[in-house]
Amino acid sequence: MTNQTHDVKKIAVIGTGVIGNGWIARFLAHGFDVNAFDPAEGAEERTRKAIAQAWPTLEKLGLAKGATQNRVIFLPTIKEAVSDADLIQENVPEREDLKKSVLSSIDEHAKSNAIIGSSTSGIMPSTLQEGLRHPERLIVAHPFNPVYILPLVELVGGEKTNPEIIERATLFYKSLRMKPLIVRKEIEGHLADRLMEALWREALHLVNDGVATTEEVDAAIIYGAGLRWAQMGPFLTFHLAGGEKGMRHMLEQFGPSLQLPWTKLKAPILTDELKEKVITGCESHAGEVSIAELERKRNEFLVELLDLVESYWPESKTLEKV
Amino acid sequence: MTNQTHDVKKIAVIGTGVIGNGWIARFLAHGFDVNAFDPAEGAEERTRKAIAQAWPTLEKLGLAKGATQNRVIFLPTIKEAVSDADLIQENVPEREDLKKSVLSSIDEHAKSNAIIGSSTSGIMPSTLQEGLRHPERLIVAHPFNPVYILPLVELVGGEKTNPEIIERATLFYKSLRMKPLIVRKEIEGHLADRLMEALWREALHLVNDGVATTEEVDAAIIYGAGLRWAQMGPFLTFHLAGGEKGMRHMLEQFGPSLQLPWTKLKAPILTDELKEKVITGCESHAGEVSIAELERKRNEFLVELLDLVESYWPESKTLEKV
Repeated sequence: MTNQTHDVKKIAVIGTGVIGNGWIARFLAHGFDVNAFDPAEGAEERTRKAIAQAWPTLEKLGLAKGATQNRVIFLPTIKEAVSDADLIQENVPEREDLKKSVLSSIDEHAKSNAIIGSSTSGIMPSTLQEGLRHPERLIVAHPFNPVYILPLVELVGGEKTNPEIIERATLFYKSLRMKPLIVRKEIEGHLADRLMEALWREALHLVNDGVATTEEVDAAIIYGAGLRWAQMGPFLTFHLAGGEKGMRHMLEQFGPSLQLPWTKLKAPILTDELKEKVITGCESHAGEVSIAELERKRNEFLVELLDLVESYWPESKTLEKV
Repeated sequence: MTNQTHDVKKIAVIGTGVIGNGWIARFLAHGFDVNAFDPAEGAEERTRKAIAQAWPTLEKLGLAKGATQNRVIFLPTIKEAVSDADLIQENVPEREDLKKSVLSSIDEHAKSNAIIGSSTSGIMPSTLQEGLRHPERLIVAHPFNPVYILPLVELVGGEKTNPEIIERATLFYKSLRMKPLIVRKEIEGHLADRLMEALWREALHLVNDGVATTEEVDAAIIYGAGLRWAQMGPFLTFHLAGGEKGMRHMLEQFGPSLQLPWTKLKAPILTDELKEKVITGCESHAGEVSIAELERKRNEFLVELLDLVESYWPESKTLEKV
């Protein structure tokens, strides 16, 4: 890249459900003009309502100069919506046949250098590229609900993706105050949803087996791991739980429990190679910062977070009931 | 219960690793006298250091009248540590034979009406009760690291547990500003660790398969689901993601993906019975509060949380590097 600004001026959003509308709200707040297309009855009305509902939050997060709720227009065809767009965000329902057919129309009418980002939760980009004239500009750009607030967007290239498209997309999504995470390998469910889906499936098993209600499962997350995960992922969390020896100690202590039935998910074998990947990964992640210093910051953060949860969370009485 | 105050005056802590020391710090901050026992060389010194490190955080959270760091004494035998205690918290390493042998000593010397709480992450209370003289007073009381900050404690009774012990323990742990979650059924890993362990095992698979580094896995949690989980568990999160029809819509839309390989964990069959449990669970959890109102509160919370993460989190630059 010769400079660090992106080249996106006009955006098209195809499919305006919860995710599509979240994208539109985020794009508008950053001062973009958006073309929208959705064939469903009443789609435009629902979109305008969703934008209005998101707007107070977007004002608090800070609007770009000139940003207004009105700079979105609905167009009657995919062709009209995409033909002048520099970036097209596709958010139609999660069905492979439908996505492929819509992407084929987008491919036909979009500018040859436009970026096409699919919001798919699980389909691999190489699958979506099949049959396109210009597959090299298609990537997965998978956001998290609420899209107009959460920073994560997973970027996944397919076999035919031009690496430059990933670079341009990274700059663009960063300009929306997002955190693009480039996923190294195509895999069903990408990265974040695989982690979430593992927890979700275990949660369904627990409810199905009569071990807990949905509310008890939620409480088991919120007041323990959930508070930690707002700040640290599972690896750094365990690195700190291991004391001065960090993850090395943690794997010695809890490695054997990977073989126990603590979940319905079978663990990988903890080979020396996997151990080293995990330990050196955590050590390099923590960098020069000592465990004691990480703990101090974590504690300060958690004290403030507990205050915040107490003041905002309508369910803070949950455990009074259970 | 005839009144709503607990009856615990003196506490014994057996085993002073990271978890035991976390308990001691929490007990001291709430003004209790604590007897401690740990046969390891240098244990007392490490405990006093850990308490000193936790203390500034505990001061911010608010100390009870008369609370000091000094009201813990180390005693040379389990007998001396537990004989005058009203509650004994056991935190020895996670090995069934070791826990059983230590609990047998505690059982021999503790007052007959003392509560014995084991911090075990995964062993079922009925297993720990085997061979005890007074098994009716033993429960699992499983906390989350850092124990002196996080509110969750899982209480699990065994086959022989007297229900009154669970009631007394609930009152006691609540008095420590904790959120006791009574687990309905004994199961390996209890409730919260099953959910965490599912995510953890999937994370290890992803690293093992070369899909992501430990740091990328952490980023995939922090900037998406992690921010949500500080406030809502997986069920209510999906209830909101389903729009006006809530979880009912969500299961229609994403139910089929439970059969896809989005994680290495197989999902249960989504029977009508399971669907109804999940949908009515979420509806009753949300109660009279509308989805729109829940969304508004969630948004306000997330805006403040993003600010907090930005100001505290030493890893907020993570994604600059990946």
